Amino acid sequence: MAAPLTLAQIAARLGGRLVGAPQTLIRQVASLQSAGPGHISFLAGRALRPLLAGTRASAVVLGAPDERLTELPRIVCDNPHAYFARVSQLFNPAVAQEAGVHPAAVLAPGVRLGARVSIGAGCVLGEGVSVGDDSCLYPRVVVYAGCRIGARAIVHAGAVIGADGFGLAPEAGRWVKVPQIGRVLIGDDVEIGANTTIDRGAMDDTVIGDGVKLDNQIQIGHNCRIGAHTAMAGCSGVAGSTSLGERCMVGAGARILGHLSICDDARISAGTVVSRSIRRAGTYTGLYPAQEHASWKRNAAALRNLAGTEKRQGTVRAKRKRKGKKNG
Amino acid sequence: MAAPLTLAQIAARLGGRLVGAPQTLIRQVASLQSAGPGHISFLAGRALRPLLAGTRASAVVLGAPDERLTELPRIVCDNPHAYFARVSQLFNPAVAQEAGVHPAAVLAPGVRLGARVSIGAGCVLGEGVSVGDDSCLYPRVVVYAGCRIGARAIVHAGAVIGADGFGLAPEAGRWVKVPQIGRVLIGDDVEIGANTTIDRGAMDDTVIGDGVKLDNQIQIGHNCRIGAHTAMAGCSGVAGSTSLGERCMVGAGARILGHLSICDDARISAGTVVSRSIRRAGTYTGLYPAQEHASWKRNAAALRNLAGTEKRQGTVRAKRKRKGKKNG
Amino acid sequence: MAAPLTLAQIAARLGGRLVGAPQTLIRQVASLQSAGPGHISFLAGRALRPLLAGTRASAVVLGAPDERLTELPRIVCDNPHAYFARVSQLFNPAVAQEAGVHPAAVLAPGVRLGARVSIGAGCVLGEGVSVGDDSCLYPRVVVYAGCRIGARAIVHAGAVIGADGFGLAPEAGRWVKVPQIGRVLIGDDVEIGANTTIDRGAMDDTVIGDGVKLDNQIQIGHNCRIGAHTAMAGCSGVAGSTSLGERCMVGAGARILGHLSICDDARISAGTVVSRSIRRAGTYTGLYPAQEHASWKRNAAALRNLAGTEKRQGTVRAKRKRKGKKNG
Repeated sequence: MAAPLTLAQIAARLGGRLVGAPQTLIRQVASLQSAGPGHISFLAGRALRPLLAGTRASAVVLGAPDERLTELPRIVCDNPHAYFARVSQLFNPAVAQEAGVHPAAVLAPGVRLGARVSIGAGCVLGEGVSVGDDSCLYPRVVVYAGCRIGARAIVHAGAVIGADGFGLAPEAGRWVKVPQIGRVLIGDDVEIGANTTIDRGAMDDTVIGDGVKLDNQIQIGHNCRIGAHTAMAGCSGVAGSTSLGERCMVGAGARILGHLSICDDARISAGTVVSRSIRRAGTYTGLYPAQEHASWKRNAAALRNLAGTEKRQGTVRAKRKRKGKKNG
Repeated sequence: MAAPLTLAQIAARLGGRLVGAPQTLIRQVASLQSAGPGHISFLAGRALRPLLAGTRASAVVLGAPDERLTELPRIVCDNPHAYFARVSQLFNPAVAQEAGVHPAAVLAPGVRLGARVSIGAGCVLGEGVSVGDDSCLYPRVVVYAGCRIGARAIVHAGAVIGADGFGLAPEAGRWVKVPQIGRVLIGDDVEIGANTTIDRGAMDDTVIGDGVKLDNQIQIGHNCRIGAHTAMAGCSGVAGSTSLGERCMVGAGARILGHLSICDDARISAGTVVSRSIRRAGTYTGLYPAQEHASWKRNAAALRNLAGTEKRQGTVRAKRKRKGKKNG
Repeated sequence: MAAPLTLAQIAARLGGRLVGAPQTLIRQVASLQSAGPGHISFLAGRALRPLLAGTRASAVVLGAPDERLTELPRIVCDNPHAYFARVSQLFNPAVAQEAGVHPAAVLAPGVRLGARVSIGAGCVLGEGVSVGDDSCLYPRVVVYAGCRIGARAIVHAGAVIGADGFGLAPEAGRWVKVPQIGRVLIGDDVEIGANTTIDRGAMDDTVIGDGVKLDNQIQIGHNCRIGAHTAMAGCSGVAGSTSLGERCMVGAGARILGHLSICDDARISAGTVVSRSIRRAGTYTGLYPAQEHASWKRNAAALRNLAGTEKRQGTVRAKRKRKGKKNG
């Protein structure tokens, strides 16, 4: 853990306007609820205001509209969340793993590592892989041959970069494998979550732009292009040959189908499946609202025949035993 | 494999009422369809009754209402499924891996292991991790620094516990990383499926209660709290800062969005996305019913304008070639 | 990389009708857009026709209807996609990893490997596992004890085969583990994607047929049977005890619930949840259409009460601050 800092030292490094005792000593960050002496906390969003009165934090980061809600020593700034993130970075260096290659990692010939790179235990890097300066691969990351990762990357455990895309040609009721000979090219300042998979391109490359942030268990298909600073939440996915613009936000579990084009600044809500291209920035949603099961059942039955044209279906209820009994 | 037992010995250990020859020798469990001599099977649920007549099992476990459906030696009990599970445990010890740390596992300094713990090949345990008595980590489990796993845990291959939560603060079109300094605390008697991921807390901890059962490929976001004895089926997920009550059941592929509170004994159907808190026990569903594609297409078109207010959309069909041809 | 071939040599090996200079030398495949001298490309589908005029490829594979769209040396055939896949296989052997067992793999006693098998770094194979001739396991694949993989398999990094199925019996608000004593049996010519999981059977086996193709992050539950030549796209899943027929196609993110039976040649669209058995070949879809958020909100509200019977709900909006303010 890093050395303590006074509130004045923090403000000197990160800016903001200091209100209250500048010598207040800060050792670590904490949430409003769990903070104690030596902790700095932050207030972002109206919903948390009630917690401010009861906090035992030594200081707090907040915006000008909230400035008078507390008597605590405080730093007032435009973007308390981002400011607080930087304060936390002072006390908690982002990369927790030492630089160097763990002896239980396996590097093929021709791997090129930048300065201060950290490769965790059990990582496997294929022939000709390159990793930029200050990047950290946590344990058990696999990077297939020929892929490139930029500088300052953080790749979490279990991620697989550069496995074959799902390229199959149908022929007489069977599948012929299409060799996947493209690469994965990842820009700078990218974070990749645990057990996320990014497939290599079929012939051209799969490209992840600078500053892209991918949460856990995300799937990126072959030949996708993800624009700079786009963020995707856990368990979302993009099917092959789709391109996302810059600064997009994709909610948890959302899926974007293949061969589509999504413009800059599009936001896809959690759980939404996007099956058409998006040409206009904005928020897009497609989510069946959850209800009590009995209400859902009636509404879903109505939905199944909304256009009044349902034909005899090929789907069959697996069990009709209750109805059978009722009629029996 | 364990030694054979007579039906009388099984009933003596596990209770139940024995009907038929007490010296019937049992070597293993099997399903009604595939059982043969030396096997014990079970009947749970009316749907499987027709299989009972044809089974070649030496004995069967069933409930009182079904007692007279067979002449086979049998054990009659209140909960045939649970009883049968315990019979199977007699013949098949739950943990198939030997106690001890495999030489190909990597343990950082300060790891504390309880008695009879089994750590598989390729596991990586970070600094200060603790694992309780009788727990089994199958191969290639990663536990990040500081996380705690209770007693009698079963963690399947590829699980990642304690990777960074998805904490990002937006600032001028880019993302500032919020260091994730909480831990993951896992209670006793927890099972965690293959390739499941549980993120460490942002500042406070992510907490998994006693007796929680997580299937494969589940994602638990930072700062979640999963109540005791809750079970989640494969590919489901809980986004950050959501709490689930005790004894909840979450169906396959269901997702619970962030910052919500789900009460005890809630059941979320498979494929459902929960976007609001749930305050009352019961079953909740939100699932677009699958139909033949042509019916779906008409109904979905009607649904898109159900409230009669659809504006010009930013989504565009990727290909209109057929329609184009028709009009040409 | 393999040696160059003339167009005549390619046609001699793979068939098709050659038009243009037979001595055209080909070194590699490429897409129409990125091809240059020495590359062969292909045209499949009307949408890509405009790219044909501008390509710098040395030759192209196409169907008879498109034969006159270019002056380039070309091979005319019935199935350009499959033909091209085979051309690419000539230049790019499917398995990029050398035969043999990597020293950082861990094989338990009793593992049986066929001829020319390749086992990557960090793989862990349990007792009695068998792998057929010419199969390739990329790094960090785990195969639990007793499971069998056929010939010519390609298994990508992070896949877990044979972990316990999710077998639990409820008893007094807790869960009793049902030992999972079946195996996973995988046929010949199967491909399994990165971080995909296939659970072992509860008592009987989980069976994957010949020629099945599974993309990344797929979950196959215990006791499933997947028919020959079925293909499943990324992040799809099949819950326990469901059987899929032959030649089915399952779209990205689709889920098939448990204890169902899906007939041969069924196609499940991306994002669809199948909750009933399917008895008739065809395409099945159930997908809430994505729209601009405001339109979705109104339509979803109407959908929630489509049958006019919605009762007071147990779900509550997490935040009503805006409404509260309006009324205040």
